[in-house]
Amino acid sequence: MPHKYADAFLRFARLNPKSCPVIGMTEPGSGKVPELGDVDIKTDFPSYYVFHDGKRVAEVENLHDVWRDDLVGFVIGCSYSFEDALLDAGIPIRHIEQGTNVPMYITNIANGRAGDFAGNMVVSMRPMTPAQAIRAVQVTSRFPDVHGAPVHLGDPALIGISDIDAPDFGGRSLIHAGEIPVFWACGVTPQEAIRSAGLPFAITHAPGHMVVTDIRNSHLAAF
Amino acid sequence: MPHKYADAFLRFARLNPKSCPVIGMTEPGSGKVPELGDVDIKTDFPSYYVFHDGKRVAEVENLHDVWRDDLVGFVIGCSYSFEDALLDAGIPIRHIEQGTNVPMYITNIANGRAGDFAGNMVVSMRPMTPAQAIRAVQVTSRFPDVHGAPVHLGDPALIGISDIDAPDFGGRSLIHAGEIPVFWACGVTPQEAIRSAGLPFAITHAPGHMVVTDIRNSHLAAF
Repeated sequence: MPHKYADAFLRFARLNPKSCPVIGMTEPGSGKVPELGDVDIKTDFPSYYVFHDGKRVAEVENLHDVWRDDLVGFVIGCSYSFEDALLDAGIPIRHIEQGTNVPMYITNIANGRAGDFAGNMVVSMRPMTPAQAIRAVQVTSRFPDVHGAPVHLGDPALIGISDIDAPDFGGRSLIHAGEIPVFWACGVTPQEAIRSAGLPFAITHAPGHMVVTDIRNSHLAAF
Repeated sequence: MPHKYADAFLRFARLNPKSCPVIGMTEPGSGKVPELGDVDIKTDFPSYYVFHDGKRVAEVENLHDVWRDDLVGFVIGCSYSFEDALLDAGIPIRHIEQGTNVPMYITNIANGRAGDFAGNMVVSMRPMTPAQAIRAVQVTSRFPDVHGAPVHLGDPALIGISDIDAPDFGGRSLIHAGEIPVFWACGVTPQEAIRSAGLPFAITHAPGHMVVTDIRNSHLAAF
């Protein structure tokens, strides 16, 4: 986003650490994020969303035509990074089994406001048995930089999700008998903040289309 | 229980650590548990159950008439000991609010068998919101010696509880709108093992009628 909004966005991220754990940031005009290895946000995401005045106007696979030298970039941790630890704990992950993108939903959980950035929290969802959900709380609590412990589990209506089979982003994950949906804060949340702020210009990742860094998942564990 | 069953019971406890965390044991014929402070299990519980041939035959307030010199005692950690930590985390506890005994249920979760000891797991239940349940998993994971993390949450039928308002032991806890029941393994489980073994003679605590030790709750935390 344009550099002049960076201050307010960093305050927004600090106010909303579950959804917006900032793990990297660029110098204005640069795509490099050296603390994450050989990463260039101008080129390394498989797909981008372009926003004008808070509205999504395009999905593009490269930024040749849209990059501007006043832009500064933020890299936010992704819950995909704790999925290896879940699998290692014997917890199957439905969207991996299905070969689909993780389902994501816009909730009724209001974000903390900073400047014009506000909007509601976006969450990702993984179905599992209650015993697996309890274990998943333990496992993902170790990874606060990639959204950490769940923010909700069970009844989707309690966080404003009216149809669990119709995610706002990503694909549908089948929920089997005896399973409950478990919800984690999601790095798509800033897109709702950009929308609510009516930001004149911004570029984001397309949901589920992440940059792969040189940092090992295990390096992200807090303990 | 008679000393000759102690070996098998210790194996049962080791096989079922969530429900049977042994934190103290007496010498045969003695009620003293020095590792827990000035504790005498012959006198310090407010109420006892007496079992003959696996059946509960009496509830008594002292053991003057039933103690035998071949008896050995086991002290098992109680989930009451992590409730201070839950309250400290801002999680209200319904049965404390109500002034009632915690509700306990016999589940369909089979215990690991050792000798003749088997039966099903007994659980305690606390209603809370999903967000509080997630926090409660984190908080209680620190206390494995007093049953640790929950074993189940949400639909009671999935663990064989047909009527959440009719606990097998203790009082009913009201479940408010937006709350789910959260279930922890319970130290009443050995009574089901005694029942299933048809043990000729045994004395237990009455559910919810615990001995208070000289050990601080904080001392029981694993980390």
